[in-house]
Amino acid sequence: MSDVHPVLIAGEWRAAASSGTFRGENPASGEALPDVFPISAWSDCDAALDAAVEAAEALRTTAPETIARFLTRFAERLEVRASELVDAAHVETGLARKPRLADVELPRTTGQLRQGAAAAIEGSWSLPTIDTKLGIRSMLAPIGPVWVFGPNNFPFAFNSVSGGDFVAAIASGNPVIAKANSSHPNTTRLLGEEAFAALRESELHPSTVQLLYRTSHDDGARAVADPRTGATGYTGSRGAGLTLKAAADAAGKPIYLELSSVNPVVILPGAIAERGDALAGELVGSCLMGTGQFCTNPSLVVLFESEQTEGFLESIRQRLDATPPTPLLSRAVARSLGASVAELRRAGAEVVTGGSAIEGPGFHHANTLLRVSGRQFLAEPHALQTEAFGNVSLAVVVRGADEALAVLTHLEGNLTGCIYSDTRGADDAVYARLEAPLRQRVGRLLNDKMPTGVAVSPAMNHGGPYPSTGHPGFTAVGIPASLRRFAALHSYDNVRAARLPALLRDANPGGRAWRLVDGQWTRADVPTNGA
Amino acid sequence: MSDVHPVLIAGEWRAAASSGTFRGENPASGEALPDVFPISAWSDCDAALDAAVEAAEALRTTAPETIARFLTRFAERLEVRASELVDAAHVETGLARKPRLADVELPRTTGQLRQGAAAAIEGSWSLPTIDTKLGIRSMLAPIGPVWVFGPNNFPFAFNSVSGGDFVAAIASGNPVIAKANSSHPNTTRLLGEEAFAALRESELHPSTVQLLYRTSHDDGARAVADPRTGATGYTGSRGAGLTLKAAADAAGKPIYLELSSVNPVVILPGAIAERGDALAGELVGSCLMGTGQFCTNPSLVVLFESEQTEGFLESIRQRLDATPPTPLLSRAVARSLGASVAELRRAGAEVVTGGSAIEGPGFHHANTLLRVSGRQFLAEPHALQTEAFGNVSLAVVVRGADEALAVLTHLEGNLTGCIYSDTRGADDAVYARLEAPLRQRVGRLLNDKMPTGVAVSPAMNHGGPYPSTGHPGFTAVGIPASLRRFAALHSYDNVRAARLPALLRDANPGGRAWRLVDGQWTRADVPTNGA
Repeated sequence: MSDVHPVLIAGEWRAAASSGTFRGENPASGEALPDVFPISAWSDCDAALDAAVEAAEALRTTAPETIARFLTRFAERLEVRASELVDAAHVETGLARKPRLADVELPRTTGQLRQGAAAAIEGSWSLPTIDTKLGIRSMLAPIGPVWVFGPNNFPFAFNSVSGGDFVAAIASGNPVIAKANSSHPNTTRLLGEEAFAALRESELHPSTVQLLYRTSHDDGARAVADPRTGATGYTGSRGAGLTLKAAADAAGKPIYLELSSVNPVVILPGAIAERGDALAGELVGSCLMGTGQFCTNPSLVVLFESEQTEGFLESIRQRLDATPPTPLLSRAVARSLGASVAELRRAGAEVVTGGSAIEGPGFHHANTLLRVSGRQFLAEPHALQTEAFGNVSLAVVVRGADEALAVLTHLEGNLTGCIYSDTRGADDAVYARLEAPLRQRVGRLLNDKMPTGVAVSPAMNHGGPYPSTGHPGFTAVGIPASLRRFAALHSYDNVRAARLPALLRDANPGGRAWRLVDGQWTRADVPTNGA
Repeated sequence: MSDVHPVLIAGEWRAAASSGTFRGENPASGEALPDVFPISAWSDCDAALDAAVEAAEALRTTAPETIARFLTRFAERLEVRASELVDAAHVETGLARKPRLADVELPRTTGQLRQGAAAAIEGSWSLPTIDTKLGIRSMLAPIGPVWVFGPNNFPFAFNSVSGGDFVAAIASGNPVIAKANSSHPNTTRLLGEEAFAALRESELHPSTVQLLYRTSHDDGARAVADPRTGATGYTGSRGAGLTLKAAADAAGKPIYLELSSVNPVVILPGAIAERGDALAGELVGSCLMGTGQFCTNPSLVVLFESEQTEGFLESIRQRLDATPPTPLLSRAVARSLGASVAELRRAGAEVVTGGSAIEGPGFHHANTLLRVSGRQFLAEPHALQTEAFGNVSLAVVVRGADEALAVLTHLEGNLTGCIYSDTRGADDAVYARLEAPLRQRVGRLLNDKMPTGVAVSPAMNHGGPYPSTGHPGFTAVGIPASLRRFAALHSYDNVRAARLPALLRDANPGGRAWRLVDGQWTRADVPTNGA
């Protein structure tokens, strides 16, 4: 089996202890791809965990500058290899080379790596807190080896070996064991090669980054619950995520999940009256972005019954019909999308346009709009929130504000929620009624803007109430907040000055980190008599 | 059943929907106390949850000043009723009226209430974050109804209706449903009366505080997993806590647990040589504080084999023998302590002094010191970390630094860990070897200080790795950090200025809250052109 790609464990590319192999598939053509990847047996996980424990220990005394050098070198290397990376991702995901992969996702990925580098050096992410009167000091500190399970839909920006969780875990001082998404193993391999090269150049511990391509489900659950594991970041389907969550929870291991979300968008009557045509274009653009395979895709649109709404729906239909469907990410996504549409239809959704898969080659589904009345939604609110991951959206047409309110109070937790209203105040009274129930059910509330863009901002929340994530207090995107997921709170009580971590000593190293000193945020040193 | 105390639900004291009754017991005498309390059936929990949802909704638009007024009035009322409260708690817990209850615990409790009031008004706890360039703003917001399960050992400061979790949940804007600890229901009743009166005086929503005395275990598990529940705070035994954790985890509901901890104290040879006698006094004082029933009681003491250590142990023995044992908190604590001592002895611990219960009246156990060799500890590390909640400690006598290191690496997660070393540097090399493994296993690391004091400081961590708590990133003590447990992250993306919460508008209300504006912590307003 010399043609099976090796895995990256303990600082070397080595043959996997393999229980089988798999190959990627080109979703645009349906053809199997030539590269063969191993399914690792438990002994690979076990070896990676041992090596990660060593790396975690080394990282505790590694200067943040070294971590930052690695992240920066990694970003630079990705830019050098951009065209090969874009080609590989295009073949494995069907996503467009340009603008999506080359001009949007890769720059976002290298931007995240550089932001992570800056955050590691600056140090404020760890919320250093100093109580000079009581002699107690605290900060967030690395939690230990982090497993990252990446999703299928962002081969660079959320990749287990280069994406948001990876950056957050490394920048906060932890080693990562990456589990590739099985739908783009070759892209992940190329990213892993660059990570490995950057590790050597920066002289970070060689086991800081490790990569497995695939494991059994049982081994995945065992890995996140292993005593050597610090925490886990997972982005993907609800079913697999909840299995991992159950295992991690039972072992008391933090796990941060990004699961499913239908991202309700409420478009109030005044907004349609004012700018319906522009909104139809905006909505369709957002719905079809990445063939609808965004975590924040607007899959549930609440509209108010009226003639204007019928015109709005017709405008959406025309735009969907006029746009050639782009490929879905994989055979599995196509299968799951078909099942979701069937479930939505069973629960009463009618097809406005599309509604079925398109014959091969490759995996395509017609751009689809479904609709259901508010009353019918309220009769089957659970089924009608089935996530249809792909280019399918459901319009819920309600009879008025009361019914809209009822629909919103039946929503599960979501990543985002959005309300469009007119600019002259005609919708303000309805907005005021709908805002609170929606606010409580989403991580990010938007006005007059589609949810698909997820800016890397300190104020971003790419998170939300269960079941969109596992805990509503954390965000997967946004630096420095996303780093805090991979940390334990360390308090130092009466610890002698020379034994404190650098960030908690009186002198603020480099004066870079914001520290909460006796209730005041400051970058200044603590006066020596204050200690 | 007119003599059964009513429960507090939906703004009124009303007869419980009761599935039975119970009475407290005076642990000093073993006698049953006269008051009769109801065991609530599910319908009480259900009614409380409905009322709490209403209160949560009202609290979202309640001024923080109103919340602060309630907390302050509550503190004032507790001071007025201090002597009755102290009497009730003394009778139910056996803890000394003075200094413990009257001079230490009650002032701490009212101090926490006032700190919570200040934090609510100031607002910085919510980490308001503003990105003016991208138009995204975020803050932590109330999570919804919070169940608080209080422990047996702090009838005021951790009481479900007046203690740390209560304050944190209320100050962050959430209603609390308090579940009394069954060992001090009457103390809890009195506290509940004052909370209720303070609610009326401050015009907070009448269901902001509700109180049940007891439920079945099944109803407790159902309550923490209920869709109406926001989160849960639990302090108590590991068994009951893990049952609640499993239920809450499966429903995706945050639960913050403070479970068991043996709080390792390492006393290095130089420290004993330098100040052994003083240390023996300090250690025994800490071990016997509250009859050893502190979450942070030093139950596991690591010492280095030597003649001096033998003298140190002898000095401890003498001090333990010279101190009359104070009562345990309850019959259940006495039973559990006996079982723990039996398990420690089974695993090889030898009795240096004490070792058994004392005949009644009341529940007492001899002040106890056990010892075991490092080698034996390493043979049964799990059993020898059995928490003996009470006036029992275990000395682990190791052969040197290597064995000490091995012992520390076998420790479970603990709230605290402490190292005593000499002041002239003789122990520094050993300290350097032992610090890292201990640091990773505890929430608070101390030098030269016993862990029993838990200051209410912003830098405190009363938390730690599993199984001492459920998540190593949170603290149950310390304001503002403890408030953040009962919050969800709310991001606002492109939301119109007038629709933002007050703390996220350009003008910082009152200029009180620290806000992270474009990466800088400041109390200033955002310049209007920056929005």
